[in-house]
Amino acid sequence: MNDKKTILTGDRPTGKLHLGHYIGSLENRVKMQHECNQFIMIADMQALTDNAENPQKVRDNILELGLDYLSIGLDPKINTIFIQSSVPELSDLTMFYLNLVTVARLQRNPTVKTEIAQKGFEKSLPAGFLIYPVSQAADITAFKAQLVPVGEDQLPMIEQTNEVVRRFNHTYNSNVLVECEAVRSSVGRLIGTDGKSKMSKSLNNTIYLSDSSEEVKKKVMSMMTDPNHLRVEDPGKVEGNPVFEYLTAFDKDKEGLGDLKTRYQKGGVGDVEVKKRLIEVLEEFLTPIRERRAEFEKKPEEVMNILKEGGQKARLVAQQTLKDVRKAMNINYFND
Amino acid sequence: MNDKKTILTGDRPTGKLHLGHYIGSLENRVKMQHECNQFIMIADMQALTDNAENPQKVRDNILELGLDYLSIGLDPKINTIFIQSSVPELSDLTMFYLNLVTVARLQRNPTVKTEIAQKGFEKSLPAGFLIYPVSQAADITAFKAQLVPVGEDQLPMIEQTNEVVRRFNHTYNSNVLVECEAVRSSVGRLIGTDGKSKMSKSLNNTIYLSDSSEEVKKKVMSMMTDPNHLRVEDPGKVEGNPVFEYLTAFDKDKEGLGDLKTRYQKGGVGDVEVKKRLIEVLEEFLTPIRERRAEFEKKPEEVMNILKEGGQKARLVAQQTLKDVRKAMNINYFND
Repeated sequence: MNDKKTILTGDRPTGKLHLGHYIGSLENRVKMQHECNQFIMIADMQALTDNAENPQKVRDNILELGLDYLSIGLDPKINTIFIQSSVPELSDLTMFYLNLVTVARLQRNPTVKTEIAQKGFEKSLPAGFLIYPVSQAADITAFKAQLVPVGEDQLPMIEQTNEVVRRFNHTYNSNVLVECEAVRSSVGRLIGTDGKSKMSKSLNNTIYLSDSSEEVKKKVMSMMTDPNHLRVEDPGKVEGNPVFEYLTAFDKDKEGLGDLKTRYQKGGVGDVEVKKRLIEVLEEFLTPIRERRAEFEKKPEEVMNILKEGGQKARLVAQQTLKDVRKAMNINYFND
Repeated sequence: MNDKKTILTGDRPTGKLHLGHYIGSLENRVKMQHECNQFIMIADMQALTDNAENPQKVRDNILELGLDYLSIGLDPKINTIFIQSSVPELSDLTMFYLNLVTVARLQRNPTVKTEIAQKGFEKSLPAGFLIYPVSQAADITAFKAQLVPVGEDQLPMIEQTNEVVRRFNHTYNSNVLVECEAVRSSVGRLIGTDGKSKMSKSLNNTIYLSDSSEEVKKKVMSMMTDPNHLRVEDPGKVEGNPVFEYLTAFDKDKEGLGDLKTRYQKGGVGDVEVKKRLIEVLEEFLTPIRERRAEFEKKPEEVMNILKEGGQKARLVAQQTLKDVRKAMNINYFND
């Protein structure tokens, strides 16, 4: 291809993207699209591992994710945006890798262990869920991705992938598979509007990229601030105050923000003033995103077509990897 | 297609086929090829689940199996003879089904439990091996097989497959997948030449379909008989006597065999006489098989081409099933 490094990133199609996703990873994708070969995968197969009873949710959110990606300015001409199940080679690779990973090792994977506990699977753990780290190893290696942006909690998945890579290359005396590197997002996660924890659909403390002006206004006006900042004249805290955290993340007028913080800490600035500023800032950020979204919402077939073409592009790469893998194993029976 | 029932059968490419395979299943395949749509699968993906370190063994035995099949008279025009990994749709189906089966259920599968113990896997159990019953469910359902010939020890696999079928059809409110029925071989398994247990490569008590006249002669002459039949004039036992068991399985002259048995039981027939008769019978059985094998051994590319074309035929069927499965789950995003 070229000298650019290859990134694999993506999302499970189980919900719309919110400001937390933007700060945690989407912003970085928009930047990296010019610097890297970026594969952006809508991980429907992975989403099905714990949504097998509800594929409709997965289906519906594929278009939503496509709209989110395009509306934040990810360019399908320079990125490969695709649906995981459009690349059946990933399933074949998973099957080959599964023979190189023990059940005990999967059961020890810290990310999977935590998620099993969170989801209350225990006795009813679907086999597909236990093995999804191997499927992820297939995703990463299929595109020979060198960089994989992850949160702290996903680091064990990268370790698991690199174990598969080393085991494969060692077993088949090859150098077909490429180890990858975790890229940690420099910005922390965005706190929820309730100030209690990270933004999460299930906690109902999110602002979506697709929220209307009305919704954003309503959500910001009911946000938590400093609980001890009761009267306008009281000094207020800026750290841990969600409204200021959002301003820090999104306000481009750093000088004005610094001034606002100083005045708030001193006392004499009401929460309403700060919230109004946040609404202004978010409107400025969201307006072009909404406009692009509105355009694409008029032509969902075009969005799906972008995903389809992305799948075809992704397949060509994965097909080559599968070919290399079978050759390394010497099971390319028909030399094709 | 037609009104014929569909059978899925096959072998793991881990060794050449022997007389035990013939009596246990190959004979039946030769008969059924005229009565059913028969899919005969060389299960390389399954063989790799416990041979990941040695894919060369799997590779080498693919041609051997192909030669064995053709030499016993399985006709590639009326059967679909193919290599499992030529049908990548099987991997996709496996991935979908894995979400419908719990890890606990797989760990309870009696066949898998026994095999894990036999192979001494325990802590080092490859994930691919644990889940192979699900991959088998994919094989069976991909071709909508109604009949699956199995030995006693494989009955739990059929149960597991039918559980997947019911779970899938129930979850996605469909009737896409078809339950299958185990067909038990009417003839028991053939005892080994050592008289101790069933014929098995690892016990070195086999006569291969591809053995030469010399080899067959040598193996028969050193076969176990009735250990108490020491002198020619002693009465001998016919039951549990491997030489007579083989004669019962292969001698077409039932009257002559009945007579020989009576004389042996009475006393006055030496083991050498019985063994010579068995050599005669096996030569008659193996000669046409050897002749066909010799022909095909001259053109291994033709054999591989038969397997390749079989794979293409098999894929067409599996592709339709995968399409139906995705439609039932409503994840056929591109309506294709």
